[in-house]
Amino acid sequence: MSTGGNDDGNVKKSKKKETKLGMTCKKDVSFGDWYSEVIVHGEMIEYYTVSGCYILMPSAVGVWELLKGFFDGEMRRLKAQPYYFPLFVTESALQKEKDHIDGFAPEVAWVTKSGDSDLEAPIAIRPTSETIMYPYFSKWIRSYRDLPFRCYQWCNVVRWEFSDPTPFIRSREFLWQEGHSAFATREEADEEVLQVLELYRRIYEEFLAVPVIKGRKSEMEKFAGGLYTTSVEAFVPNTGRGIQAATSHCLGQNFADMFGIKFEDDRGSRSNVWQNSWGYSTRSIGVMVMTHGDDKGLVMPPRVAPLQVIVIPVLYYKDADMMAALKEACESTVHTLSQSWIRAEFDDRWKYSHWEMKGVPLRIEIGPRDLANKLVRMVRRDNGVKVDVPVANLVEEVRVLLDGIQENLFRAAKERRDACIRVIHTWDEFIAALNDKRLILAPWCDEEEVEKDVKARTKGEGELGAAKTLCTPFDQPELPDGTLCFASGKPAKTWSFWGRSY
Amino acid sequence: MSTGGNDDGNVKKSKKKETKLGMTCKKDVSFGDWYSEVIVHGEMIEYYTVSGCYILMPSAVGVWELLKGFFDGEMRRLKAQPYYFPLFVTESALQKEKDHIDGFAPEVAWVTKSGDSDLEAPIAIRPTSETIMYPYFSKWIRSYRDLPFRCYQWCNVVRWEFSDPTPFIRSREFLWQEGHSAFATREEADEEVLQVLELYRRIYEEFLAVPVIKGRKSEMEKFAGGLYTTSVEAFVPNTGRGIQAATSHCLGQNFADMFGIKFEDDRGSRSNVWQNSWGYSTRSIGVMVMTHGDDKGLVMPPRVAPLQVIVIPVLYYKDADMMAALKEACESTVHTLSQSWIRAEFDDRWKYSHWEMKGVPLRIEIGPRDLANKLVRMVRRDNGVKVDVPVANLVEEVRVLLDGIQENLFRAAKERRDACIRVIHTWDEFIAALNDKRLILAPWCDEEEVEKDVKARTKGEGELGAAKTLCTPFDQPELPDGTLCFASGKPAKTWSFWGRSY
Repeated sequence: MSTGGNDDGNVKKSKKKETKLGMTCKKDVSFGDWYSEVIVHGEMIEYYTVSGCYILMPSAVGVWELLKGFFDGEMRRLKAQPYYFPLFVTESALQKEKDHIDGFAPEVAWVTKSGDSDLEAPIAIRPTSETIMYPYFSKWIRSYRDLPFRCYQWCNVVRWEFSDPTPFIRSREFLWQEGHSAFATREEADEEVLQVLELYRRIYEEFLAVPVIKGRKSEMEKFAGGLYTTSVEAFVPNTGRGIQAATSHCLGQNFADMFGIKFEDDRGSRSNVWQNSWGYSTRSIGVMVMTHGDDKGLVMPPRVAPLQVIVIPVLYYKDADMMAALKEACESTVHTLSQSWIRAEFDDRWKYSHWEMKGVPLRIEIGPRDLANKLVRMVRRDNGVKVDVPVANLVEEVRVLLDGIQENLFRAAKERRDACIRVIHTWDEFIAALNDKRLILAPWCDEEEVEKDVKARTKGEGELGAAKTLCTPFDQPELPDGTLCFASGKPAKTWSFWGRSY
Repeated sequence: MSTGGNDDGNVKKSKKKETKLGMTCKKDVSFGDWYSEVIVHGEMIEYYTVSGCYILMPSAVGVWELLKGFFDGEMRRLKAQPYYFPLFVTESALQKEKDHIDGFAPEVAWVTKSGDSDLEAPIAIRPTSETIMYPYFSKWIRSYRDLPFRCYQWCNVVRWEFSDPTPFIRSREFLWQEGHSAFATREEADEEVLQVLELYRRIYEEFLAVPVIKGRKSEMEKFAGGLYTTSVEAFVPNTGRGIQAATSHCLGQNFADMFGIKFEDDRGSRSNVWQNSWGYSTRSIGVMVMTHGDDKGLVMPPRVAPLQVIVIPVLYYKDADMMAALKEACESTVHTLSQSWIRAEFDDRWKYSHWEMKGVPLRIEIGPRDLANKLVRMVRRDNGVKVDVPVANLVEEVRVLLDGIQENLFRAAKERRDACIRVIHTWDEFIAALNDKRLILAPWCDEEEVEKDVKARTKGEGELGAAKTLCTPFDQPELPDGTLCFASGKPAKTWSFWGRSY
């Protein structure tokens, strides 16, 4: 393997034939514009006429389907069964759990007409499916033998938000996976909350190469109607905002009580089940784009890249026979890689910057000298490094490089994220860190009133909005006796992450 | 291999412990009640509070996902790309093609409110996605180099029908795959219409084991706004109704004209593209249930059965060690089958009739004598035949049996369907055949007015509603000169299938 050049005296520099526009915005200069540009030019999203709704392009659907493949396998291990529940929910079911409907009511879309006729009663489109599913749980679950009960589905949900739609990150319709389970005991429910949270960590860290923090949400930020919420939290250094990446809720027995989900134990006495619900959405794709993209476009982590390798012949005007031989070598390369389940395609239109913009992890180029020396040239999307590899080792070297890119993306993202963490102790330090767009780790008294107060006091800080808790991480630094809450001055109970968020 | 008994003097007949209700309706006596019962007790469907909407249970989702696996692979070969377009469409886009909106308008569900606020303008939920997608096709397609353009998606659609909802067959929300393509020439569009129709035939005949007829829909029955529609048509002998099983439409240049989807050819002149759209839905699962189910419950064709083999030990009260050994043998059998990608599970609750009701194609029983003789007993769901198979040939024999069941289900269904076909020449024969619930093949003048007339004249025939064309089959019998239309007495142009339909 060498890193020497494969240009040749006889080879004319390949000419870029681009019909699409290239990237014009810089990630570090105007992040919002850059994001809008990268998702469109990288062909992840097309903006749509209905505000807050977006067209998911093949690259986005491809990532989503790859994640689904992993997750479906893990669901089988967990013995969770796939269901599909309806899109629609009646007003009375939706309103059964008061805190829950209070949390979702302002964002619910209502169908009131079909054709020219008014419906007898308006029907809601699911913002989430607790109130759709749980009336049936009460029918299906009778005895301890029906437990644990675990179901999940892939579907679209609608939350008609008015604030600041952002493709993937905050849209009115989005795709997600939602899971719902019921247990005889709190211990089992507690355990599964963390099992699923670990799957979400793996989706982010092992597939999307995005570092996340596992922790528990504050009382203010937990799921409406639930007992407690755990989450994985990502962070976007460019905007200094945290982002709730996926959540796994313990619902306790509250919904069971409202919906009458009871089981008879082996001695014949009836109790409410313990329930969880958990989900992750296409938001994950947006976090991936924000984390890895650069000024040339998207950078796709290999494990979720619908296209992992693009193979391009070096353009060789002088000799049609040689050009044909190069194309043949490229097609044979694609064939060999595809046989080994590596997702590869052949491009004979020399769209170099197009593939860079789409974030394809590895480009293989084959020129006359490569052909003569039985080599191919590989170019990494993440760092631009070029290596020449013997054709004999093709599959093995591609695998090594793809793994290396995957690891490198995660490592680099983690370094950037970690560099943003700032530990503070006082209000002044807190405000300074907030204005510095840090991910703030602060000792906190863990009181709801204090979080409300922090929110109110930071509303006016800069143009970026109020601060809130992101999570109380499971991985707690030592909290020496006598440590005080940065905001209230009372004794601190935890270290918690604070910041602005999406 | 023998078909001898595996019961043993020491083995007590296994006792059925059923908590769920069994089947009470007979398919041949009260088909409608039987269908409602079989989909609920077979755990395919749970009825839902919102009329016309149903909960798809794991068995139904499992079938759907297996079909998706096949279809996604074929889409890759066809170079069709997966997209996800929004659920919502504006009124103005929906109304752009007049015939199209005329066809769908009465069934469109409208969102008019979010939270407590009225939307500025009502927004429709997709009944199909032509008007959602095509404005973007006009943006994406510029040149002949962008053609052919092929996209498809998996999604839910909503058609708020008021007539006679039936789970899977006619529901207000359903899941489907819809594909949309654009070409430079009519020839290419014509060709793809049939390529996709062939995929649909394969889904029905090779996967769901349901015989279908390929053909062209009449002018009255074609897709609203399209040029012509092809379909695969199934038939339900018990009700004497045809059912449109999947459709592949050539849209011609009509939508291209309305939505401005033009391409520049290599000499710089601009033309409208030629378009197709095609789809199949969860209706296919209902057709499968109606075709194969019997008085014991569902019968799942092995290729789409989420669970192909259920393994149950013979209940052996006398000897706990033997019972443990039998369970171990069962678990090892499941393990061996799973290693060979056969979908198998172990049941130690002896729910024989439960698995019959769910239609699991093959049951394996292991008793003491089997264990001693290194045999397992296999029981076919389709015909009840029992065979004893050496453990050494387990995987091979299971494969042979599953293939045999698949073939047998198709063959038997085809025989039943074919027995319903009646060739007629006159109006009197037509009415007699209709009242006999036949699938009627008749010489026809192929005039829209005549079909309207037949519809009107048969409205009062029995309680089953009017007759219409199902399709004009591609496979045409000879039509001797001078053959007259059964309905108009004019010269016949084709043989067409007529009947009542879902």
